[in-house]
Amino acid sequence: MPELNQHPENEHQQPSGATRRQFLRGAGTAGAAGVAGLTVMGLGGCAEGAQTSDIRPGQGSAEPGDNDFLAKARVPFDGPHQAGVDTPQQSFIKLIAFNLKESKTSREDVIRLMRLWTDDARRMCSGLAGLADLEPENLESTANLTITVGYGRSLLDKIGLSDKAPEWLGDLPEFSRDELVDAWNGGDICLQICADDRFTLSHAARFMTKTARTYVDVAWMQDGFLHARGSIEPGTTPRNLFGQLDGTANPAPDEHDDIIWINDGPEWLRGGTAMVIRRVAMLMDEWDILDRASREVAMGRTIDTGAPLTGTDEFDDPDFEALDQYGLPVIDPNSHMARAFSTDRSERIYRRPYNYDMPPGPDTRGTSNSGQIFICFQKNPLKQFVPIQQRLDEADRLNEWITHIGSAVFAVPHGTNEGDYWGQDLLEG
Amino acid sequence: MPELNQHPENEHQQPSGATRRQFLRGAGTAGAAGVAGLTVMGLGGCAEGAQTSDIRPGQGSAEPGDNDFLAKARVPFDGPHQAGVDTPQQSFIKLIAFNLKESKTSREDVIRLMRLWTDDARRMCSGLAGLADLEPENLESTANLTITVGYGRSLLDKIGLSDKAPEWLGDLPEFSRDELVDAWNGGDICLQICADDRFTLSHAARFMTKTARTYVDVAWMQDGFLHARGSIEPGTTPRNLFGQLDGTANPAPDEHDDIIWINDGPEWLRGGTAMVIRRVAMLMDEWDILDRASREVAMGRTIDTGAPLTGTDEFDDPDFEALDQYGLPVIDPNSHMARAFSTDRSERIYRRPYNYDMPPGPDTRGTSNSGQIFICFQKNPLKQFVPIQQRLDEADRLNEWITHIGSAVFAVPHGTNEGDYWGQDLLEG
Ligand code: HEM
Ligand code: HEM
Repeated sequence: MPELNQHPENEHQQPSGATRRQFLRGAGTAGAAGVAGLTVMGLGGCAEGAQTSDIRPGQGSAEPGDNDFLAKARVPFDGPHQAGVDTPQQSFIKLIAFNLKESKTSREDVIRLMRLWTDDARRMCSGLAGLADLEPENLESTANLTITVGYGRSLLDKIGLSDKAPEWLGDLPEFSRDELVDAWNGGDICLQICADDRFTLSHAARFMTKTARTYVDVAWMQDGFLHARGSIEPGTTPRNLFGQLDGTANPAPDEHDDIIWINDGPEWLRGGTAMVIRRVAMLMDEWDILDRASREVAMGRTIDTGAPLTGTDEFDDPDFEALDQYGLPVIDPNSHMARAFSTDRSERIYRRPYNYDMPPGPDTRGTSNSGQIFICFQKNPLKQFVPIQQRLDEADRLNEWITHIGSAVFAVPHGTNEGDYWGQDLLEG
Repeated sequence: MPELNQHPENEHQQPSGATRRQFLRGAGTAGAAGVAGLTVMGLGGCAEGAQTSDIRPGQGSAEPGDNDFLAKARVPFDGPHQAGVDTPQQSFIKLIAFNLKESKTSREDVIRLMRLWTDDARRMCSGLAGLADLEPENLESTANLTITVGYGRSLLDKIGLSDKAPEWLGDLPEFSRDELVDAWNGGDICLQICADDRFTLSHAARFMTKTARTYVDVAWMQDGFLHARGSIEPGTTPRNLFGQLDGTANPAPDEHDDIIWINDGPEWLRGGTAMVIRRVAMLMDEWDILDRASREVAMGRTIDTGAPLTGTDEFDDPDFEALDQYGLPVIDPNSHMARAFSTDRSERIYRRPYNYDMPPGPDTRGTSNSGQIFICFQKNPLKQFVPIQQRLDEADRLNEWITHIGSAVFAVPHGTNEGDYWGQDLLEG
């Protein structure tokens, strides 16, 4: 990996001696910036939004009290890791998968595309318009825009770099309950674009697609959302469309190096990560008629506070051994939490999911076309995502109300230094 | 119209002696609340968001500086007019058109549906969960939620109330450039749901649809957006996907009575309005390659400030007579503004449009599936919308880059008093 400009904001420092629980609690309050050593990009920045500091000189940062505090909220583009992975979740996501056009499958074509794209992405995330953008006004608000690239197995195969692919890059093993639809599967290249403003997101996505149109075709596009900035306290766990607090047991920043970031193998992936995307339809009609107690049993957590059924606070550790008055486990061993929980600590994943809710279409189930764009990051999906999903596939009370309909895996190369382009040491290696 | 609880917040008071221009300027600043007599629901409220006052006792209102200022931002549900018409635009819209099920076409069925719906809408807009909602947590943020109902001609025909329909209620005349797609046309009933939070919107839409599912089927659903709260100063004109400031020349609050609100004819529509929805595809590929000067000629306004080409400020009045050094009109007579401008002041409309930007689908044109959900309100579309659209259809430079693909007209009954239901005096009359 080339030497990088180490922006202090990009370093993840952990408040010394803080437990994950304390850490998360701190982040859940407006005073997150006050937690010793909490870093801008790691959590405090986007959580406070406007406090995301600006890496370009001469551009001020705004305060949350400002009426346009999102306008100048920026996440640094360059750094050892790409932004958009452990960046606190913005309100909106657009995932776009592309396939190389048949006439553009040489390594030089991909280098050209990556140069153009990296330049545009870097410019837009810093509040400059993309190169030759005739509508710079559409980027008036950066709104914590991040643009992250990932490469599919098929990309490396097409451009003759199969030998540089990690073993985990490719289709996931089939799970028994999968009902995958071709339209949501795979892709040569993926862009994950996130922002706190749907309009900014739209323009950035459009601009990236346009830049690329002589090289690639769009394979699929997924639109997702969370609560708006201003609706819940920054750092608070957001709810999914089943009404559940979703994200509670995610690894804390001091665990990211162990769980997310690759630190061996091919150079181009050191500092990078593996991205798994599963489109999961949620069967709202069936969920709707389920009583509250059954919903809580299915998850192993309460709906209101998100606490495990053996605790009272969202961040209490679950007690899987606890028995109720009849001698039965308080947390159902087939609840989603119990099945997803890994006693093997090397098996964990970093989840970054979004809700989707679409007009009626081919994926409509009953009266809804909604669900979760499940996204997770890890060093190795075969060792982390797969064993978890195997347990869930086998037995998870939630299965009655969810169906996996799309699947893709992408290798996310390490971050860039100013002037570098995405995947440079893969493509030039 | 029944006697109404007149909430002072619902009255539109106009700053005495202020011109539209001054008024709009005032609204464009953070100091909007300081403009004498500016009312909460009329403009200042949503513009300032958190200052939208709360009609239920015991629920506090938040300040914009709060990190969850949207959570308690509410627009009063009851009042002489339905909310969501002259309510300052929220960031998100969902339009859902429904058709009565064949077994549910009696007037009693519709009365039952309207009772259920009005109750749920009133509750949700006040921050209470819908009746028997098992997921009240999904409404943690009201985010200026509004829910507005409209009736199509086909509804009145089906339930034997054709004689109560105003003459303008029905399909619009066909325009020469129309490329209407059945999937986006008409509908018995329309719900317009708006909020500043996409998650809140999703839950409210889902809940309303669910309540109704034994009575109606979804005919179509349209999702739209504007800039996020926090991205542009409240009251600032938002940009559309062509990068244009869109909304500048909209009638000021003191003109709403003349332009929007019906004050004669059938009782159920006095205090109501007519809603026109046109789905307009914007051909982004072609627009993208157009130079900036040509874009400004096509509109008659500049891209950066939105000023007419004869002025310097967004709210300057256009001078259609002004000639340039060659004796040619500075504002092209075929520009969108010149064609849309009405010398007959009774012909104007109140526009409330949203952007749409969808994954590839049947409506994709070139590489985009984006455009504008053009929505306007007026007393009588045949006298207001139609003559304008006829001029645009005939000759509007913008036509090269836009195509109308959907059309619908709904009669929006007057507002409710607490305890009333939508359309009560139509349905019981
Ligand atoms: C629509 C699909 C899904 C929904 C609605 C959902 C929802 C949730 C919720 C509400 C929690 C508890 C709160 C939290 O810790 O975040 C949770 C935990 C978790 N989920 Fe999921 N989930 C879904 C799919 C998945 C998938 C596909 C995986 C991975 C294969 C997964 C892995 C996990 C893990 C690892 C935890 C944390 C368990 C722990 O250590 O306590 N989930 N999920
Ligand atoms: C994609 C479609 C459309 C776009 C992008 C668009 C855009 C614009 C823009 C940028 C302006 C100037 C700023 C302003 O006053 O808001 C404008 C003005 C206007 N537009 Fe449109 N428009 C569209 C369709 C329509 C339609 C269908 C109608 C009605 C039939 C309409 C009626 C008007 C009117 C009445 C004005 C104000 C003219 C004046 O009095 O100055 N527009 N439009």
